[in-house]
Amino acid sequence: MNGADSLIRTLIAGGVDTCFTNPGTSEMHIVAALDRATEMRCVLALFEGVVTGAADGYARMTEKPACTLLHLGPGLANGVANLHNASRAQVPIVNIIGQHARYHLLYDAPLTSDIEAIARPYSKWLRTPSAASAIGRDAAEALVAARTAPGQIATLVVPADVAWTDGAAIAAIPSTPKAALPSSDSVNRAASMLRSDVPTALLLTGNALYGEGLTAAGRIAAATGAKLLAPYPITRAERGVGTPNVQRIPYMPEQAIELLKDIRQLILVGAAAPVSYFAYPGKSSVLTSPECEIHAFATPGEDYVGALQALVAELSLQNRKPILTERAERPPRPNGEITLAGLATAVGALLPENAIVVDEAMTSGRGMMAATIGSPPHDWLGNTGGSIGIALPLAVGAAVACPTRRVLCLTADGSSMYTLQALWSMAREGLNVTTVVFANRTYAVLQREYSGVGAPGPRAAKLFDIGHPTLDWVHLAQGMGVPATRVTTLDAFAKSVREGFETDGPTLIEVPL
Amino acid sequence: MNGADSLIRTLIAGGVDTCFTNPGTSEMHIVAALDRATEMRCVLALFEGVVTGAADGYARMTEKPACTLLHLGPGLANGVANLHNASRAQVPIVNIIGQHARYHLLYDAPLTSDIEAIARPYSKWLRTPSAASAIGRDAAEALVAARTAPGQIATLVVPADVAWTDGAAIAAIPSTPKAALPSSDSVNRAASMLRSDVPTALLLTGNALYGEGLTAAGRIAAATGAKLLAPYPITRAERGVGTPNVQRIPYMPEQAIELLKDIRQLILVGAAAPVSYFAYPGKSSVLTSPECEIHAFATPGEDYVGALQALVAELSLQNRKPILTERAERPPRPNGEITLAGLATAVGALLPENAIVVDEAMTSGRGMMAATIGSPPHDWLGNTGGSIGIALPLAVGAAVACPTRRVLCLTADGSSMYTLQALWSMAREGLNVTTVVFANRTYAVLQREYSGVGAPGPRAAKLFDIGHPTLDWVHLAQGMGVPATRVTTLDAFAKSVREGFETDGPTLIEVPL
Repeated sequence: MNGADSLIRTLIAGGVDTCFTNPGTSEMHIVAALDRATEMRCVLALFEGVVTGAADGYARMTEKPACTLLHLGPGLANGVANLHNASRAQVPIVNIIGQHARYHLLYDAPLTSDIEAIARPYSKWLRTPSAASAIGRDAAEALVAARTAPGQIATLVVPADVAWTDGAAIAAIPSTPKAALPSSDSVNRAASMLRSDVPTALLLTGNALYGEGLTAAGRIAAATGAKLLAPYPITRAERGVGTPNVQRIPYMPEQAIELLKDIRQLILVGAAAPVSYFAYPGKSSVLTSPECEIHAFATPGEDYVGALQALVAELSLQNRKPILTERAERPPRPNGEITLAGLATAVGALLPENAIVVDEAMTSGRGMMAATIGSPPHDWLGNTGGSIGIALPLAVGAAVACPTRRVLCLTADGSSMYTLQALWSMAREGLNVTTVVFANRTYAVLQREYSGVGAPGPRAAKLFDIGHPTLDWVHLAQGMGVPATRVTTLDAFAKSVREGFETDGPTLIEVPL
Repeated sequence: MNGADSLIRTLIAGGVDTCFTNPGTSEMHIVAALDRATEMRCVLALFEGVVTGAADGYARMTEKPACTLLHLGPGLANGVANLHNASRAQVPIVNIIGQHARYHLLYDAPLTSDIEAIARPYSKWLRTPSAASAIGRDAAEALVAARTAPGQIATLVVPADVAWTDGAAIAAIPSTPKAALPSSDSVNRAASMLRSDVPTALLLTGNALYGEGLTAAGRIAAATGAKLLAPYPITRAERGVGTPNVQRIPYMPEQAIELLKDIRQLILVGAAAPVSYFAYPGKSSVLTSPECEIHAFATPGEDYVGALQALVAELSLQNRKPILTERAERPPRPNGEITLAGLATAVGALLPENAIVVDEAMTSGRGMMAATIGSPPHDWLGNTGGSIGIALPLAVGAAVACPTRRVLCLTADGSSMYTLQALWSMAREGLNVTTVVFANRTYAVLQREYSGVGAPGPRAAKLFDIGHPTLDWVHLAQGMGVPATRVTTLDAFAKSVREGFETDGPTLIEVPL
């Protein structure tokens, strides 16, 4: 067995069943190993930012790592912006990056680069196997590292000669270290905060935002009146009818400060203390009140679900029912002229049960979360790292992970352009993704941000204007095999969204604003 | 004057007149400075790989740096694959990357990253200004670093608070260190090799491949019978009627070995000794004969033109006329069914005087250089680092640099998909670029490379197949405002190419193969 086979077979033995890839010449032996490994689904993307973003989406929905296969330093380089997002999402990914044969590195051929240096900022674990006989073990350790809470990026740089050399073997997978629980002191402190009359909130992240973690948080909120909050960059949140209500901290600092101003105790469950996305001259980065006491109850990498359950036990709330969003009459579908509020209402009215909503609609999508609170239960995936161009790739990964669920990808013309190649992978794999492109033909965020600097002159204004020439998303989608339509009324929008949910395979709806 | 103004005004004072950009919130003060600085042309791209690739193309044609303006770590990350190519091209670029305000970094907001770590592998010079009062001087030093031979990437990481703080000033630009000449020993050794009867070649790179450098090399070749060679990854080569003929070393190792097998003395002018792109089991990476003596005559960063002129002087060839490619009757335009040979002949027949050919046509374009030897004089730009997705961005930069020249961008469906957003910038700026997309609907390079591993099974074959679904380049181009057509005969191809050359603004021609 050569190194490539032992790599792929070890990952399969460890439960990895999906490989997102854009391979090159130096990875041909690994491609051959994939060719032989029918247990691994291979998903090709035409740009590496799609590969890494899809691995992120897959991990968010399955809680387990996919592997990537990328071509040398440049292939990795094209994927690192979405690895930034994935590292902020704290999801498990096993990256496999081909490297030149070690003896070839001496010649500094054009594609030579220091792959470890490129990968290091994004990798919690990073190794270049030194021999074919070592690669199985290294793959197993990469897998353990990826699975280590809260979820990590593990990167294997595989020299071609290590991949093609015989004498390798499938390695056993060591057990993954169990995430630690907070100390009893930390539990006691959180409990005492919650028992007080002081306005208190829990700020949840990771798996505290769905499933058992969210249920435990819901019990606490119901019993103590504590608010449940999520950071603006949501990795995955369960929402809608039958779930405890969690409020997301708004992106805009003024709105975030307003939401947080009366909170005097903030209990962090995996999350960092809330700060503004950006700094502004003369403004504080901190969003909480100066009087707010912040308790890092469960720190990143601790067991958030276990921590919340321990807190439930300490407060004797095991039988307390969370307050769940109730099924209400769904709003009537709006009609007439396109408005942001109308679009949000339409999405709220149409979202099917168990949908996965991927949200990078930027300024155009700000009303979407409010409009979908009363929709059937669904998951919401956001941009965790602020690197724009995650939505379409995330949607690919989520749809690959959950073939029986419907994915609604809310995006915008500016953000979609960074990784539009994802549309091709959606078509290729027949993924059930309905993409909505809000086309305001501007970098509206920047237009607004510029107002802090002054009124833009024509030269600055031109840098925010992406409407000259107009991006035609119907053409762009059709060019990659995705059926698409442009809508100019709310009726047509609602009709297209519903048709999207009822159609097998991807569709795209452009909404000029 | 704030830091942002001093940065931009210093660069302008140093002769920088073009900024390729995709800015974000943390760069708003720099955008405001650009708004005020009418001497700087700002070119917006919708993806950062276009920004960096365009800066490369601009530098290749003007021999001076453009600046980029990129948004934090993720914006830089999206641009680094083409910075890999630019660093291999050894061209001057001044990167400006926004960073959070320094006090904001402490909070580890979502977009925080170690920008210096991301930039370091691609930057010969890298600095984060420590205060508004320092940024002018740092910009001046960045400019000097970028201009230092052979051309370097200099990266300035600009914290937002440094940009927005007053008390800055325009800095004087220090003089750029003069590139050194090879030692007289080195000149004498090269001269003695050329005086011998042993088969000798000069391997040229950088500015030895055009202008005075090429003329000097041509004199030497004419007098001594030495072959003139260029490495496969050509930065910029002057070719066609009236220029000395230079042969490019082929990409395929077998063909390269065949070309080099009889050469017994190889004189390197800036170039590295020729090696294969990739390593293959049991094959040597070295392409020259074991009996070939290699002399690193002018090393990277030395004065290639001066070195060749010193060699001309040493050999007393100042009045020797180079052997120049003569004007021949141009081949008749082929017609009938599409063949690769026919497409190449058509390009050879139609290429206008002073054209700039950007070549990333991969397997489909291999005959293009041979077919254009007898075309009117033109420049040829290649992929210097092997990171695929450079052609369209390079064409943007070359067209911005040379508005009176016609750019022919030869690319392929696989390679174009990495940075197709460049088409929008072409339309936006009305650039005279005629793009030809050879659409063989496969990663043909990989199909061929896989043959060294075995016959691909259906799973491997699927990873090389990019034809399901079919990429429709007419739709993709039109979606970004570029008029496009699909041709299915050589007549139609020739007609469209000619029309492209005669049209103001960009056009795209898809050639299904």
